[in-house]
Amino acid sequence: MSETPPSSTRPVVRLLPGRDRRVKAGHPWAFSNEIAMDAAARAVPPGSVVRLVGDDGIVHGAWHFNPHSLIAARRLDRDPEAAIDAAWFRARLAACLALRERLYATPFYRLVHAEADGLPGLVVDRYGDALALQANTAGMDRATPALVEALAALLAPRAVVARNDAGVRRLEGLPEEIRPLHGAPEAGATVEEGGVRIPVDLLGGQKTGWFFDQRENRDRVARLAAGAEVLDAFAHTGAFGLRCAAAGAARVTLLDSSAPALAIAADAARANGLHDRVGIRRADALEELARTAETGRRFDIVVADPPAFAKSRKDHGPALRGYAKLARLAAALVAPGGFLFLASCSHHVAPGEFAEAVVHGLWRARRRDRARILFQGGAGPDHPVHPLLPESAYLKAMLLHLP
Amino acid sequence: MSETPPSSTRPVVRLLPGRDRRVKAGHPWAFSNEIAMDAAARAVPPGSVVRLVGDDGIVHGAWHFNPHSLIAARRLDRDPEAAIDAAWFRARLAACLALRERLYATPFYRLVHAEADGLPGLVVDRYGDALALQANTAGMDRATPALVEALAALLAPRAVVARNDAGVRRLEGLPEEIRPLHGAPEAGATVEEGGVRIPVDLLGGQKTGWFFDQRENRDRVARLAAGAEVLDAFAHTGAFGLRCAAAGAARVTLLDSSAPALAIAADAARANGLHDRVGIRRADALEELARTAETGRRFDIVVADPPAFAKSRKDHGPALRGYAKLARLAAALVAPGGFLFLASCSHHVAPGEFAEAVVHGLWRARRRDRARILFQGGAGPDHPVHPLLPESAYLKAMLLHLP
Repeated sequence: MSETPPSSTRPVVRLLPGRDRRVKAGHPWAFSNEIAMDAAARAVPPGSVVRLVGDDGIVHGAWHFNPHSLIAARRLDRDPEAAIDAAWFRARLAACLALRERLYATPFYRLVHAEADGLPGLVVDRYGDALALQANTAGMDRATPALVEALAALLAPRAVVARNDAGVRRLEGLPEEIRPLHGAPEAGATVEEGGVRIPVDLLGGQKTGWFFDQRENRDRVARLAAGAEVLDAFAHTGAFGLRCAAAGAARVTLLDSSAPALAIAADAARANGLHDRVGIRRADALEELARTAETGRRFDIVVADPPAFAKSRKDHGPALRGYAKLARLAAALVAPGGFLFLASCSHHVAPGEFAEAVVHGLWRARRRDRARILFQGGAGPDHPVHPLLPESAYLKAMLLHLP
Repeated sequence: MSETPPSSTRPVVRLLPGRDRRVKAGHPWAFSNEIAMDAAARAVPPGSVVRLVGDDGIVHGAWHFNPHSLIAARRLDRDPEAAIDAAWFRARLAACLALRERLYATPFYRLVHAEADGLPGLVVDRYGDALALQANTAGMDRATPALVEALAALLAPRAVVARNDAGVRRLEGLPEEIRPLHGAPEAGATVEEGGVRIPVDLLGGQKTGWFFDQRENRDRVARLAAGAEVLDAFAHTGAFGLRCAAAGAARVTLLDSSAPALAIAADAARANGLHDRVGIRRADALEELARTAETGRRFDIVVADPPAFAKSRKDHGPALRGYAKLARLAAALVAPGGFLFLASCSHHVAPGEFAEAVVHGLWRARRRDRARILFQGGAGPDHPVHPLLPESAYLKAMLLHLP
């Protein structure tokens, strides 16, 4: 089975004269303003596999093409004739799997992280025998049947679900949707990490998945948690907090505004025998941080890992002010000698900017001058970064000690 | 015992009119061009504790002062009358110790990391019951007797040695020297990490200490090492390579130009029962990388963690070219699907610059376009960073997968 026509009939898309520099240099993307967007190109169905050809006649390989997207073409293969079929996907997926099996002892990880894994626009998370797929380009959306065939052949999964609810799909003219692709996803899935088992609602309407990108950071925070009072703000299904509880925290408060996410967290606390030390508080996290400050209650560890504050470039300034405010409110709740973990998953905020906003917030909380930055970093190694897309390293995390 | 005069007779040093902004904002340093460097100030003995006073009469606390250094004053305490004696040092050291005991299960770490630990210019490494101290300012040099008294009271160490062989001491007008300060350092010390014991020559004339800053990065590389052929270039006493061998590497080659460092590595390989899988090669590492490329031999893991290429700002350009060359030579030796770990400890090279140099080197080795960056980061949490000195995060490390 192949979702693409035979390569001999593959459409040709041309780069504009003098606009082939980046593609020649090996960049995995061609932008729409680099492409001769004539009537023929505009008529290519979004998500087609095309041959990208320079003004000089040089053929730059096989690419996914979407005439309606700013990132109009994404490199698939240096061979312009490569059949982009289930066998091709299986080979790429097998390489992704081999790397993860080298990195992790258990089958819970991001299996595919888009461009850096040679599969542009595709994300696959693995929860043991269940897989959640995000096709964030028209090309990967069209390729989904071949992808599912390849995943089934490689991993024989019990369930595969399309979690195509990422906003970036709109840039490709694709609808947001969650739908089963294979097997029985209704039963959900479970992720195991650091001795804790947490359910993942594969088909839930809310964002009730799992954030593998913070795995190493959860390890880092949990190592500090023995005997600690912990506040996990923006807790979602409680990953940070439950890991701390399992690592011996005296008391953990999970704070989030989402009832479905907190219901999963409560179930998980019970199922892991941690419910006697885990409290759950449903509220707007920022408002609750401010309220708690007034009660005088303090915590040995405060975690604040909010959803992206900057969804687009225009949110950039407000997002930085938001991170400074978050740092101020969260730092105020850290007991003397305690720890503060803060993170930003906003693509539009650079690491240095995030750090500056956090330090400003610490200053406003009068907790800056003796603070120690213990760690600054990003996502784990199952979220590799393409060498030519350093900006794709979206996650920024900071762990601070506050004497 | 106190090395400073009673605070009532403490010299006063004044900030210039309009130059108190940074000090008022809480910065831990005052530069010489911010200070009224009159005859009285120039006559203050280097390393004295002074009261730093603004043109407006505001007293900014107690500072170490050196009229001959560009960083003329370093903040010790907000209280200008604080006695900077053994008891003061003991309190600061106890806070450093409490943090490390929270971070690590075994007593092998950087106990004090200068400004971020509230002890400007001071570095203390702990090897169990042996301590190596670096006093990198005139203030900490003068304070060394009080420091040793405080360390002895806190940790009852078997040995304390001054490893004052860092070049930065010249900026303070201090000689480079290694000397015993307490107990019996002649017997040396041992560091234990990841199941490996490696001797540390406390008094060796060569840089034969230990680099705690790469501990987490050694963990990271060792986790990939089962069954691997490993090349550890700039191996020093073999920390990366021996950790890989202990983690199950099939074969490890330690490459360095230093005979004394390799002698320690060879002893350690034998003592840890790893000598049958560890080979030692004494040569200039860059030259040997180039020679090995021609033999066709390849490795599953190549580690290249050289000494600083940029010792000063003027070395910046050559250093970046050096890192690109190192990346090119090292990448060429990585077998398909293998891993490359590269690091820079040059203060004068920024993280983004290092990453660009590495990516350029990968391109020249034709290993860039499919490369995955698995990790970018710095030193471990026993090397905290002061929020107002982000540039003190000197270590840059990259772990790459090279299909």
